[in-house]
Amino acid sequence: MDSHGPSLLARSLLSSSDLETEFVDQIALFAALLCGCIVLGHLLENSRWLNQSITALLIGLCTGGLILLTSGGKNSRILEFKQEFFFIYLLPPIIFNAGFQVKKKQFFRNFMTITSFGVIGTLISFAIISYGATRLFPILDVGYLEIKDYLALGAIFSATDSVCTLQVLNQEETPLLYSLVFGEGVVNDATSVVLFNAITKFDLSDMDLYTALDFAANFFKLFGLSTLLGVFVGLLCAFIIRTLYFGRHSTDREVALMILMAYLSYITAEVFGLSGILTVFFCGIVMSHYAWHNVTHKSQVTTKHTFATMSYIAEVFIFLYVGMDSLDVGKWRFIEDSPGKSILASVILLVLIMIGRAAFILPLSYLSNLIRRDSNEKVGIRQQVIVWWAGLMRGAVSIALAYKKFTGSGQTIQPANALLITSTITVVLFSTIVFGLLTKPLIKRLLPQSSQTEPSSPTSSSAPLLVNGYDDGDDPETENHGTLTAKASLKMLFNSPTTTVHYYWRRFDDAVMRPVFGGRGFVSYATGTRDMNVIH
Amino acid sequence: MDSHGPSLLARSLLSSSDLETEFVDQIALFAALLCGCIVLGHLLENSRWLNQSITALLIGLCTGGLILLTSGGKNSRILEFKQEFFFIYLLPPIIFNAGFQVKKKQFFRNFMTITSFGVIGTLISFAIISYGATRLFPILDVGYLEIKDYLALGAIFSATDSVCTLQVLNQEETPLLYSLVFGEGVVNDATSVVLFNAITKFDLSDMDLYTALDFAANFFKLFGLSTLLGVFVGLLCAFIIRTLYFGRHSTDREVALMILMAYLSYITAEVFGLSGILTVFFCGIVMSHYAWHNVTHKSQVTTKHTFATMSYIAEVFIFLYVGMDSLDVGKWRFIEDSPGKSILASVILLVLIMIGRAAFILPLSYLSNLIRRDSNEKVGIRQQVIVWWAGLMRGAVSIALAYKKFTGSGQTIQPANALLITSTITVVLFSTIVFGLLTKPLIKRLLPQSSQTEPSSPTSSSAPLLVNGYDDGDDPETENHGTLTAKASLKMLFNSPTTTVHYYWRRFDDAVMRPVFGGRGFVSYATGTRDMNVIH
Repeated sequence: MDSHGPSLLARSLLSSSDLETEFVDQIALFAALLCGCIVLGHLLENSRWLNQSITALLIGLCTGGLILLTSGGKNSRILEFKQEFFFIYLLPPIIFNAGFQVKKKQFFRNFMTITSFGVIGTLISFAIISYGATRLFPILDVGYLEIKDYLALGAIFSATDSVCTLQVLNQEETPLLYSLVFGEGVVNDATSVVLFNAITKFDLSDMDLYTALDFAANFFKLFGLSTLLGVFVGLLCAFIIRTLYFGRHSTDREVALMILMAYLSYITAEVFGLSGILTVFFCGIVMSHYAWHNVTHKSQVTTKHTFATMSYIAEVFIFLYVGMDSLDVGKWRFIEDSPGKSILASVILLVLIMIGRAAFILPLSYLSNLIRRDSNEKVGIRQQVIVWWAGLMRGAVSIALAYKKFTGSGQTIQPANALLITSTITVVLFSTIVFGLLTKPLIKRLLPQSSQTEPSSPTSSSAPLLVNGYDDGDDPETENHGTLTAKASLKMLFNSPTTTVHYYWRRFDDAVMRPVFGGRGFVSYATGTRDMNVIH
Repeated sequence: MDSHGPSLLARSLLSSSDLETEFVDQIALFAALLCGCIVLGHLLENSRWLNQSITALLIGLCTGGLILLTSGGKNSRILEFKQEFFFIYLLPPIIFNAGFQVKKKQFFRNFMTITSFGVIGTLISFAIISYGATRLFPILDVGYLEIKDYLALGAIFSATDSVCTLQVLNQEETPLLYSLVFGEGVVNDATSVVLFNAITKFDLSDMDLYTALDFAANFFKLFGLSTLLGVFVGLLCAFIIRTLYFGRHSTDREVALMILMAYLSYITAEVFGLSGILTVFFCGIVMSHYAWHNVTHKSQVTTKHTFATMSYIAEVFIFLYVGMDSLDVGKWRFIEDSPGKSILASVILLVLIMIGRAAFILPLSYLSNLIRRDSNEKVGIRQQVIVWWAGLMRGAVSIALAYKKFTGSGQTIQPANALLITSTITVVLFSTIVFGLLTKPLIKRLLPQSSQTEPSSPTSSSAPLLVNGYDDGDDPETENHGTLTAKASLKMLFNSPTTTVHYYWRRFDDAVMRPVFGGRGFVSYATGTRDMNVIH
């Protein structure tokens, strides 16, 4: 037995539960692949085409192919893609971090445009994709699909994948485009929840005014409640940290509380059927505005990078996961007889997505430009093209929704449903890889100046700590407001309503919110953040 | 439908998978409880008796009781205690963080004592508990137990729970005691793996010299391989970060790589049947000695606090989990007829644990003191009592091992096995709460000066960042070595061998290791950590 050593040990120790052994093996392999993705993604970062997500997707595909070959065509995935796992563990850190690091002023300045993209735009896109599929799929003879299936298809493919967007647009280089596309992705999650709900409950085949009003009421209720829940949890966290003065004892406790309360906001929203994405996004915004200023300086550095790191790992995980899962043989076996049909269906879907997106980006941008007085703030035609293009990608959210809708507990059943699953995977792979690869060059071509003329805030590694530690680069307070008189503010109300809303918000923030919840400049000396700063 | 709002929404949305809904509810409740534990633990921190773990355990018990009452005695736990979950997700961050933050010089200076406690001590304790149970349990008439069950009982209860130790001993206040008890807990994990393996494989009822030698060979192989694996992964991580110069682009990538490679070391050790705890502990030590110095300053602050936070959350999670699970009705139903037997069995086990521990702490400390020349370094009788006492607690590790051994997939089967499970839970609850509550006062009484006379390194919240950022307080290099001539070192070799080993290690470290793997003072200017420091 000595010659065999550890492997014998392992077998005798773990033979009691083979399932567990297999699970541990899978985790080990997956962890190794994640490390590989990070290292390879780093090495390829200067590439003109590739980004981290495509690297992870390709590594996933290659590994899946290798496993497929070594297992003799029986198995391709290490971990099965489970939509619960995705929605419960992987998505929240990504969206929370996006809210935490978002440039708040940029986001709220474009709030109306973002909301119209996320709500009206998603509905337009949903209608076009659903209608197009209803007309075109029967020609393909894919088998019987209910009207609800077509509507679900529309709901699945009208949702922009905010995770993909994060990968191709850079907040530092193109802040306006980033806030438009990413904000749209967050807002239309709420629309998707309402849409899915409507599909399940209403008889959409005869739509009347009452149904439409009901739908609208539902949407506003969901949107409002989700946002309120996120804001409430964020404020509660700020209040607890400020009142109980956590920094006195332990940085770790502050960080742990922020992480757990952020997660709590998401999971509570899910429990009550709200939009968890919207909730955790606003929770992130509120936490970065209040709670983040109440913690010690070390906690500030730690939370900022911890949230970013968790989000980063979750993103790489998702793309690796999707890449590996997409080669799963079980799904493809159903369409062996008719591969052409699946490809045609994917092409139809891709074209519908492109048309559906163009059908709302261009008119809504035009309307939005009418309201904006400042010509610098208008969204030009080139930028509209990028907004259109960057939102075309469909990713893990689409796959997870497709699994939820078209499979019973992970196994495909009906041939028509199997075809929808494989088409979804094809669309996701194609759009992520092809559209993803072309986005960087497209932005460089259409906006050649963008990466040079906006130096904005320094990246985390190149700047010294103390300068950058407080310069989170996203606080509206750092920008120039000047002193506004009542008269001037009245004039502004007519000229640029968003700026004035911002002015009144700041007055309310300074007078009411910050004294209670803390925030930049309103942290009491007792908490030690400011006086530490003085000592330096 | 408007009046029902979100709850109706939730039901209609999630009715497709009730299992998922229930799971989401459980997670939400658990996350809320974790937040509650953190806040309450903070408020009670100045209490003389309570600590974080007891607070979490009590909250878990109370919640379990509440659920038991509301569900009419049917159910008490939110999440079922699964030993896989514990060993795969909760234990690694705790042990890794302990290795990462351990005072390395203190640990290696006492290495021989720690190892003898962890190996010989565990064997003595194992023998006493097994033998005692074999003699005393039949008197109780608990039902038929095999000889292997008694041996398993010995193995389970001879393992010190390092998670409990972290809770009651403070590295800053009592560094020597901390390193002794905690180090013992880490080393005896390897002993436990070998013991469990031996119980499964050997016929221990007739032990001969060959079996004993085989056992010893197995132990050294396991110990060596586990340590080597941890050191290898730690060095690999340092090398990758140094060579590829990650800080250039992203702090998050460095942090992600360190987290993932640490986890990879643990899970790889588990795959090969090694001691994951030993591996990840040494991986933490190596990472803090090399890799940590290769990353940007922001990453240093982030990793230090992120690891501590993850460990903190996992600890609170474990105690909450154990508290809630221990009221599970299913386990107690089996012993309804004879509650006295279970209590008696628990008392017997507790007494055996106390005797077994005293039987090795006192003689081994005596032997260890014989070797030490410096009277300041000797372990006095009062300290021996604390080492004995602080290691008496049994925690989640014992419960997880008992589940693994005495239940088939989570359900208790035989009455005798059910009794062993309930006795384990009783021992864990009693020892954690009672011994845990008394530890702080005991230390205060026996070592009244300890908390005043050792100011050591400042706590993270009270010191300014730049001073503390580099002052990780655990680098052997910060302490005073002076310049040793060859003659002096030869003299030292006879006087205090450990110090001389340290001297030669440092020469090797400076000449060979640091130029390759980085480390304090050996980071090239290109990586930006040092020159950043100069700028400040």
